[in-house]
Amino acid sequence: MDYNVNEWNHVFKLDPNKHLSDSSLKKVCESGTDAVIIGGTDGITYENVVALLMRVQAYEIPCVLEVSAIHAISPEFDGYFIPMVFNSKEKRFMLDVQHEAVKQFGDFIDWSDMLVEGYCVMNEQAKVFQATNCTLPDQEDVIAYARMAEHMFHLPIFYIEYSGRYGDVNLVRETAEQLHDTMLFYGGGIRSAAEAKQMKEHADVIVVGDILYENIQAALETVQACKE
Amino acid sequence: MDYNVNEWNHVFKLDPNKHLSDSSLKKVCESGTDAVIIGGTDGITYENVVALLMRVQAYEIPCVLEVSAIHAISPEFDGYFIPMVFNSKEKRFMLDVQHEAVKQFGDFIDWSDMLVEGYCVMNEQAKVFQATNCTLPDQEDVIAYARMAEHMFHLPIFYIEYSGRYGDVNLVRETAEQLHDTMLFYGGGIRSAAEAKQMKEHADVIVVGDILYENIQAALETVQACKE
Repeated sequence: MDYNVNEWNHVFKLDPNKHLSDSSLKKVCESGTDAVIIGGTDGITYENVVALLMRVQAYEIPCVLEVSAIHAISPEFDGYFIPMVFNSKEKRFMLDVQHEAVKQFGDFIDWSDMLVEGYCVMNEQAKVFQATNCTLPDQEDVIAYARMAEHMFHLPIFYIEYSGRYGDVNLVRETAEQLHDTMLFYGGGIRSAAEAKQMKEHADVIVVGDILYENIQAALETVQACKE
Repeated sequence: MDYNVNEWNHVFKLDPNKHLSDSSLKKVCESGTDAVIIGGTDGITYENVVALLMRVQAYEIPCVLEVSAIHAISPEFDGYFIPMVFNSKEKRFMLDVQHEAVKQFGDFIDWSDMLVEGYCVMNEQAKVFQATNCTLPDQEDVIAYARMAEHMFHLPIFYIEYSGRYGDVNLVRETAEQLHDTMLFYGGGIRSAAEAKQMKEHADVIVVGDILYENIQAALETVQACKE
């Protein structure tokens, strides 16, 4: 592991199922962001994950896989983020899929490259909300999940994911106040430097995704906004 | 917290729903065991938990509550073990009950007194197996759960519970080999010093329960067997 999540401020999340031109990818990788996360919900295959990884590997930036499907795991990543969906109704998105992966690959895993994310999906319209059969938590629920992530499971990351929609700043602030050792990631609907900056006041790391595919210049401006 | 689980070898588990005479309780608390855990599956009430706690508090020994029902939590214990049942089919025994407790008591919890146990219930006939809607894991499953407990959730305790039946020594040994920072607790069916000693060769901590209510002398002999 040649990166330290605790020093991150900003990451870009690339979807293997969406297209980014070579020139845009170059801008992303040389933007000053702390890492590229590869992850998505729909149409994730081993082939499109590895193809995107190889393009990112042309640059110096750490490239992390957010594991959503066992069949798409390649051993070439700099790290692996394992989502544990706190607000799913089903145990399999908390533990069983992960258990299957550990059964299969347990002997080969370098555990220092594998970070569990306590995931909270906050947007009922999001594909990931439906795909992982979530219930919508209120602010009290999220705060209790955050406390569990830090104190009971000692997770490196607690991730509030609004997935496509800009989230509730107050909820992010209240959650941030609960976390000391666990890093708070915020993702969802960031489309400008101002929005990135507003969420960065509370979250440790801002995840920027969709806007990359809509307005690359606006996406790039979020990097500097998080570093100030 | 005035005890250190990492230094334990042997504990007695007392069931608030079963009767132990004052003289037997005195022998238990002065036996040299490292702690008394209060826990059970059936007939757990606030009243019988607190009544048993008060009797144990007459002695120097640490007294820990293994939390199975929110309504039976008293703030007077030296510590709280929170079971997270890895092989339950239902998320609620992994996380939702715990989440409810953190929502209710989160502001008052001293997290250093609260230890999460990664629990694996290995006896299909046991009440706890049925009560938490478990599936029976094989050895590979248990090993993968143990690795997750240590590397993904950084749990202080991984607990193999055969609940009333003496377990598979080979499985306990293979599991122990996976664990370095997480302590391995073994419980189930220990009725003699020889059995305690055999499991102690692999597990860090031996939990002795049922035999207390059947043969107090045999129960007491397990303490010394674990200290040798």
